[in-house]
Amino acid sequence: MTYASDNLVIVGLGLIGGSLARALRASGFSQRFIGYGYREASLLRGVELGVIDEFTLDLDEAMERADIVVVCTPTLTTAQMLEKILPLLRARTGGPVVTDVASVKGNVRNAAIEIAGVMPPQLVLGHPIAGSERSGVNASDGDLFVNHQVILTPDVENDPAAVELVRAMWRSAGADVVDMTVEEHDAVLASTSHLPHVLAYTLVDALASADNSEDIFRCAAGGFRDFTRIASSDPAMWRDIAVANKSALLDSIDVFSDHLARLRKAVQDENTDELFNTFERAKQTRDEFTTLLAQRIQSKPS
Amino acid sequence: MTYASDNLVIVGLGLIGGSLARALRASGFSQRFIGYGYREASLLRGVELGVIDEFTLDLDEAMERADIVVVCTPTLTTAQMLEKILPLLRARTGGPVVTDVASVKGNVRNAAIEIAGVMPPQLVLGHPIAGSERSGVNASDGDLFVNHQVILTPDVENDPAAVELVRAMWRSAGADVVDMTVEEHDAVLASTSHLPHVLAYTLVDALASADNSEDIFRCAAGGFRDFTRIASSDPAMWRDIAVANKSALLDSIDVFSDHLARLRKAVQDENTDELFNTFERAKQTRDEFTTLLAQRIQSKPS
Repeated sequence: MTYASDNLVIVGLGLIGGSLARALRASGFSQRFIGYGYREASLLRGVELGVIDEFTLDLDEAMERADIVVVCTPTLTTAQMLEKILPLLRARTGGPVVTDVASVKGNVRNAAIEIAGVMPPQLVLGHPIAGSERSGVNASDGDLFVNHQVILTPDVENDPAAVELVRAMWRSAGADVVDMTVEEHDAVLASTSHLPHVLAYTLVDALASADNSEDIFRCAAGGFRDFTRIASSDPAMWRDIAVANKSALLDSIDVFSDHLARLRKAVQDENTDELFNTFERAKQTRDEFTTLLAQRIQSKPS
Repeated sequence: MTYASDNLVIVGLGLIGGSLARALRASGFSQRFIGYGYREASLLRGVELGVIDEFTLDLDEAMERADIVVVCTPTLTTAQMLEKILPLLRARTGGPVVTDVASVKGNVRNAAIEIAGVMPPQLVLGHPIAGSERSGVNASDGDLFVNHQVILTPDVENDPAAVELVRAMWRSAGADVVDMTVEEHDAVLASTSHLPHVLAYTLVDALASADNSEDIFRCAAGGFRDFTRIASSDPAMWRDIAVANKSALLDSIDVFSDHLARLRKAVQDENTDELFNTFERAKQTRDEFTTLLAQRIQSKPS
């Protein structure tokens, strides 16, 4: 059997890294999977589960052996990890291709350029739009990326072969790969993910501090529970994302606030036409989106 | 067998009215169920399904025979229906008790006082916090109110016996009954339901009008779908609710906007402590709420 990769190194073996290793082992993309990280317990567990073949606590060794390095650490830690990895990236042909999975791309690109002087040709940034309420290697799932989008943000400095290898890797894991600029990615994620989290957190916090908060939470039901589900997400992770994607998030908060102010005025003026038209437009958009989402999921072979 | 009611009239036989009739027939609360409304097809279907025993298109007849009248029409229509019903309400002992299910109570109370001069002693306003994405008598479900809250807003003018009859009716349908003032009810519902709908509609509409809306909806996934589910609700119904509960809704939009502006400033200033503390507080509140909601559902016998 020919593999696209001999030794694929997962840096940070949690839900995402573990699920990727499982998927790529099943698809035959890489011959061996090597874990690297600080938490030996996770790495031992990864070997026990058969997610990785072996692990090392020595980054030099991992980089020496790897032909692909996937940095699967949390958003803000990714830049810190690149400070250690990039100096070990030799600019030779055949050196490892490095990619990441962080939710924000601008800060990772800026960190890479600050560390290396230019965007390293072998560093291809990416972001799988997939996750789970569970975390850790125990929750890893080889089907996590099937039917999911992975956004790559190739840079003009990138080696095209490196970009194609990362694209092939995600396709091999069952994902749809989409290319965007870093700015497009960060704006899209601000709109679809970071802003909704901010809105959900803000709503729950506002209601919790209201005089009638006891009555509010006593009478809230299933619809409220669903709407605020994302407010149960990890506060440290979302603090980091909010800061990492500050500029795009501020823009999307401002756009939202403008629209909310407009709708507030329609309520104030009892402008029933504008209320109906806004709600109707939103309903149509949302219904079309869910139809497309369902088709996307059904049309993909798993 | 002794019944609390001989003839219970459902005005507007849809999901709520049909489900109430089913529940009260199963619990033996009323001997007979009579439907009244404009749409004969729904009423015929109600008889066919065994939800009601008979129906009439003559409101005089319905009012003459009823000992309880439950107005189950949509929010804004409730006030219009009371214009027809209240003049037929004779102030004699033994005249029917009238109640409703509208999502907003202030406008219904104001309409009743305008029609009748004072709040009629036999008119007890209420609101079951229950619903379904489905509608119509075909979707009616005798368990719809089990484990759900019903808020009654008794008035000082109300006959205490009328209030107790309505309370007994909802308890007989399996609901928890909570009393509030009209103002408390409308503020709580603005916070837990009307504001979230406005936020979801506003978010989807704002994103739909963005330059990058195609990328946005292509990359949005399951979390976004869940967060915006309520933006697929009926636009006409929510236009009516927004106008009916204008004052409380404007207040809750303002409280939300203040909190959002504060969080925006924390992002702008990269105030990581405030971001973390806000997200953490919201997560704790939301986690406690879902635990309580789950307990409430589990602890109730059905």
